[in-house]
Amino acid sequence: MAGVLGIDVGGSNFRIGLFDQEGHRLDLSEGKTDSSGGRDWMLSEIRQRSLSLIEKAELQVKACGISFGGPVDYDQQQVSSMHVSGWQGFKLARWVKEHLNLDCLVDNDANAGALGEFRYGAGRGTHSIVYITISTGIGGGVVCEGKLLHGRDSLAGELGHIPMSVAGAVCSCGGQGCLETFCSGTAIALRGRGLAKRKPAVLARTIELSSGDPDKITAETLFQAATEGEKGAVFIVREAAQWLARGLLMVIRILNPDRIILGGGVALAGKRLLDPLHEYLDILSIPMLQYSTEIALAELGNYSPLYGAAALGWELV
Amino acid sequence: MAGVLGIDVGGSNFRIGLFDQEGHRLDLSEGKTDSSGGRDWMLSEIRQRSLSLIEKAELQVKACGISFGGPVDYDQQQVSSMHVSGWQGFKLARWVKEHLNLDCLVDNDANAGALGEFRYGAGRGTHSIVYITISTGIGGGVVCEGKLLHGRDSLAGELGHIPMSVAGAVCSCGGQGCLETFCSGTAIALRGRGLAKRKPAVLARTIELSSGDPDKITAETLFQAATEGEKGAVFIVREAAQWLARGLLMVIRILNPDRIILGGGVALAGKRLLDPLHEYLDILSIPMLQYSTEIALAELGNYSPLYGAAALGWELV
Repeated sequence: MAGVLGIDVGGSNFRIGLFDQEGHRLDLSEGKTDSSGGRDWMLSEIRQRSLSLIEKAELQVKACGISFGGPVDYDQQQVSSMHVSGWQGFKLARWVKEHLNLDCLVDNDANAGALGEFRYGAGRGTHSIVYITISTGIGGGVVCEGKLLHGRDSLAGELGHIPMSVAGAVCSCGGQGCLETFCSGTAIALRGRGLAKRKPAVLARTIELSSGDPDKITAETLFQAATEGEKGAVFIVREAAQWLARGLLMVIRILNPDRIILGGGVALAGKRLLDPLHEYLDILSIPMLQYSTEIALAELGNYSPLYGAAALGWELV
Repeated sequence: MAGVLGIDVGGSNFRIGLFDQEGHRLDLSEGKTDSSGGRDWMLSEIRQRSLSLIEKAELQVKACGISFGGPVDYDQQQVSSMHVSGWQGFKLARWVKEHLNLDCLVDNDANAGALGEFRYGAGRGTHSIVYITISTGIGGGVVCEGKLLHGRDSLAGELGHIPMSVAGAVCSCGGQGCLETFCSGTAIALRGRGLAKRKPAVLARTIELSSGDPDKITAETLFQAATEGEKGAVFIVREAAQWLARGLLMVIRILNPDRIILGGGVALAGKRLLDPLHEYLDILSIPMLQYSTEIALAELGNYSPLYGAAALGWELV
């Protein structure tokens, strides 16, 4: 029997899994990323842990897929990282071939997450999905007819940087009014902090849930207070949901996929995000252009990219 | 040698062409659409003219493709029309099989236009294009890895109805702030007429070019006056170009196609539209997310859908 290695190289955690053809995870080795160790530390961890998994495996490991938490030039199979040293222009797939003797395919974590959910998660049984991961920032991946779209510059699925409004804030990317500035976890928290300073009374419960410090407000404490009915928190959550609804409607108008799958930390709010999202999508939708694209939550949680990495590996077998 | 029939059923004109495998148009029969004649009149024209083309043809006609100027349920191969009677729920491909004895594939005119430009026009040599046709309204089609995307509800590529702004006008579709309300030919003309009534002095030349009647201002007269440097006309053209740039950037963020191809009447403005469009795309673009998607004008003009119909026919051979 044959298997593959899936590897998820992330900024906070890294994971290496052994998978069979049905996507069952047979073994797992994971740890915290030591960014100060840079590329060399990470490669050494990957090498040792992978060799150990391969040695223990009861099936023959045939290939490897990697989800990388930073920009990937897919055509060149080359990664880069703006936060951790040593990765710029690094040919990661070639390194795997040389050090683990496995054919390897690398993609960025949002694309890997999309593929993971498509094959083994909330996208099973569909032809096309758009995956959107909402945490600190917003990323995305597009699967059409079973294939990940990369686009001419490996930039397809950059959903966080859809220009939503001329009236938006400056984004981390340098643009203005990107989707990310309206409904990433960071944006939601910032809006909460701003409101808490202007009008502490309408966010009293949120502030209490945030150790009494307006500067410690997070998307999570806002969602919690909104669930309890706090006016200011409800306002901010609904505003974020409204912008997200507009973003998803753009995706629907352009691609009309079978399903849109929401992942990342903010999606953990579950029903508290989905309910207002559906409400706004319903208000924005048009009888003449009735679509049946479904909105679903990711099923694989933090492991979507790891499962996607396994799926990348299977593309080589 | 083999050939196919391409048929373009439009609201103003209809066209039937005979094509070889390289997309050369060997013969053509075209006329004005008589909408009062409804479906029966059109089918009778198609039948007679097609049989005549087939009879004259020096190659064997193997299949037929149809571009239909109205909504098409691609999976059901069923058309409908909101303007002309008799088409609602009509199985056009089946009719062709019964009356012309040819296998047939039907798609809407925007999708057919996209496929036509991809195979035989401005999209030759690429892997993926987005085609956007700007005339009275705005339509579009998406070709990825050589295949037209239809989406779950045959609604992929509905670029005219991307929600651009909460501050937009009500659209013909019933939505609000759709791309079409900002930069279709109709929208550009309406903005010109509005400004001409408020401030006739800044559109004096446009009004002159419109038979002296502000109500006869069209996108064409505005583009002409803008070229001559009229302040008000320049303002309106640049505003339309700015919204179009934002719409194209959304497409680029989601799909990052090789090329975006502009067709339809408004695209006939050529450089007068492309110059401000490129200027705004350049201002909106971000060094971190540098894309190389090209913006090009359609090469087949009014015949993009007809060539696309031929390409649909070839998919059956």
